[in-house]
Amino acid sequence: MQGMATADFQRLIEDELELARWLGLRAESLEGGKATVRLPFKAESVRPGGTIAGPAMMALADCAMYAAVLGLRKEAVMALTSNLTIHFLRAPKPGDLIAEAEVLRLGRRLAVIEVSLRSEGEAKPVAHVTGTYALPSHGHGEGSAVP
Amino acid sequence: MQGMATADFQRLIEDELELARWLGLRAESLEGGKATVRLPFKAESVRPGGTIAGPAMMALADCAMYAAVLGLRKEAVMALTSNLTIHFLRAPKPGDLIAEAEVLRLGRRLAVIEVSLRSEGEAKPVAHVTGTYALPSHGHGEGSAVP
Amino acid sequence: MQGMATADFQRLIEDELELARWLGLRAESLEGGKATVRLPFKAESVRPGGTIAGPAMMALADCAMYAAVLGLRKEAVMALTSNLTIHFLRAPKPGDLIAEAEVLRLGRRLAVIEVSLRSEGEAKPVAHVTGTYALPSHGHGEGSAVP
Amino acid sequence: MQGMATADFQRLIEDELELARWLGLRAESLEGGKATVRLPFKAESVRPGGTIAGPAMMALADCAMYAAVLGLRKEAVMALTSNLTIHFLRAPKPGDLIAEAEVLRLGRRLAVIEVSLRSEGEAKPVAHVTGTYALPSHGHGEGSAVP
Repeated sequence: MQGMATADFQRLIEDELELARWLGLRAESLEGGKATVRLPFKAESVRPGGTIAGPAMMALADCAMYAAVLGLRKEAVMALTSNLTIHFLRAPKPGDLIAEAEVLRLGRRLAVIEVSLRSEGEAKPVAHVTGTYALPSHGHGEGSAVP
Repeated sequence: MQGMATADFQRLIEDELELARWLGLRAESLEGGKATVRLPFKAESVRPGGTIAGPAMMALADCAMYAAVLGLRKEAVMALTSNLTIHFLRAPKPGDLIAEAEVLRLGRRLAVIEVSLRSEGEAKPVAHVTGTYALPSHGHGEGSAVP
Repeated sequence: MQGMATADFQRLIEDELELARWLGLRAESLEGGKATVRLPFKAESVRPGGTIAGPAMMALADCAMYAAVLGLRKEAVMALTSNLTIHFLRAPKPGDLIAEAEVLRLGRRLAVIEVSLRSEGEAKPVAHVTGTYALPSHGHGEGSAVP
Repeated sequence: MQGMATADFQRLIEDELELARWLGLRAESLEGGKATVRLPFKAESVRPGGTIAGPAMMALADCAMYAAVLGLRKEAVMALTSNLTIHFLRAPKPGDLIAEAEVLRLGRRLAVIEVSLRSEGEAKPVAHVTGTYALPSHGHGEGSAVP
């Protein structure tokens, strides 16, 4: 069981995750069950009220969960989100958002991950996320691409 | 308390919700606490394995929740997602996704909404979503734009 | 794959689920991926404000999810809740609560279930629940009893 | 805005929260938006497989969220759980469970709280919980006892 390097995860974003690429997500680190991913501020992510759109924050959190899992098991590229819960806490500042994800449990079939989203330079989180990734099994899977 | 017309909600997508616009979301109906929103299939929403990206599905669901709320209270444009939980059930077909949202409870301060996502023409849901919208209060708000 | 009979599930409550037994939960039907379980009203479940305690409602919902799963696969007694999300919608009446659970997806490893809780005789739900059960695997398990 | 003392919260459990009392929940500390509550191990909380019943863990988490909120605002006794999401991570040891709750955001109308559950003496959490409490408003409420 070996983890994916940060640069390889960034390449995965560029090559395979069109929405993450459109949002400009940048993997900053993958290591030891933790991952940091950045959502650069840009006009496209804004919604009425001037705050960053909730779905952009969900996409960031989901990507950070995926990064945290792949940082532990690089062969789990086919892992899929099984569920995700997000609580929005406060309006983000008009700036980059930083997602810090941590794997709370890595099992053989499921990983549970927690993510905290912060505006860069701020101490208080703007959103809190928990979710489950279904891990690909080896030869006796649930199906091709279904958790 | 009056609801927003479908065409007005579509205009809101085009004018204000950049991410929803980028995804091509189309409001099909807003009526009586229910709303239907469509995510047209396009290559940009796909992820490894050929299925539609989870964040695109979350954006669709969030938009449908918003539509269902505005379909009851058109003045609640400043309503904000307070929390959202999604369960992914099966891989979507390579085709349009249809979100059907229903307001389970509309209070003075909170609305709870349920959404079912289906591939067009399929009976079984591909994802199930529940969430809460914080409604703007009138003159004694929680803050400007924070749930 | 065969389902458990309602009476057998009730016996499971009496013999094995001490908390459910203490609450007086009664299985009313298990059939075809759906289950109905009743929480009889009693003083012990009440909290400040006169309403039924949230944890009693969660216990009812969890039991109904379990019933719905066993109603499809009676051998899945070792299935375990992997996650549960509850939204409280309105204060229950001082009377019995009825939980109606439905399996949204039954996979080889996971079942996702939706539950609606209603006060007896009322149309509107008092709570909405979704959750995932991890199903016991056969010979290549995640571990003894952990999702 | 003043917080409730630990002993006063324990009295609230004894006097008002019948289910929490039946489970033997013990408030260990309420301070500064954090709270610690203990579920003493006893046979009644066990389920098939020898582990502590999920609903007992949910009741513990809910009580700890309530404690964390009251630890900040003692007058919020009528606060009600609006939603709760629990992820079960590993089977608890046969021993006491400790819940540590922290308020992530305290607004005028909503509080969002995170809870980690651990078996006493263990480092790794057995469950992770997030939830929202609806706070009682003062004179212009959502209703008497409805989130």
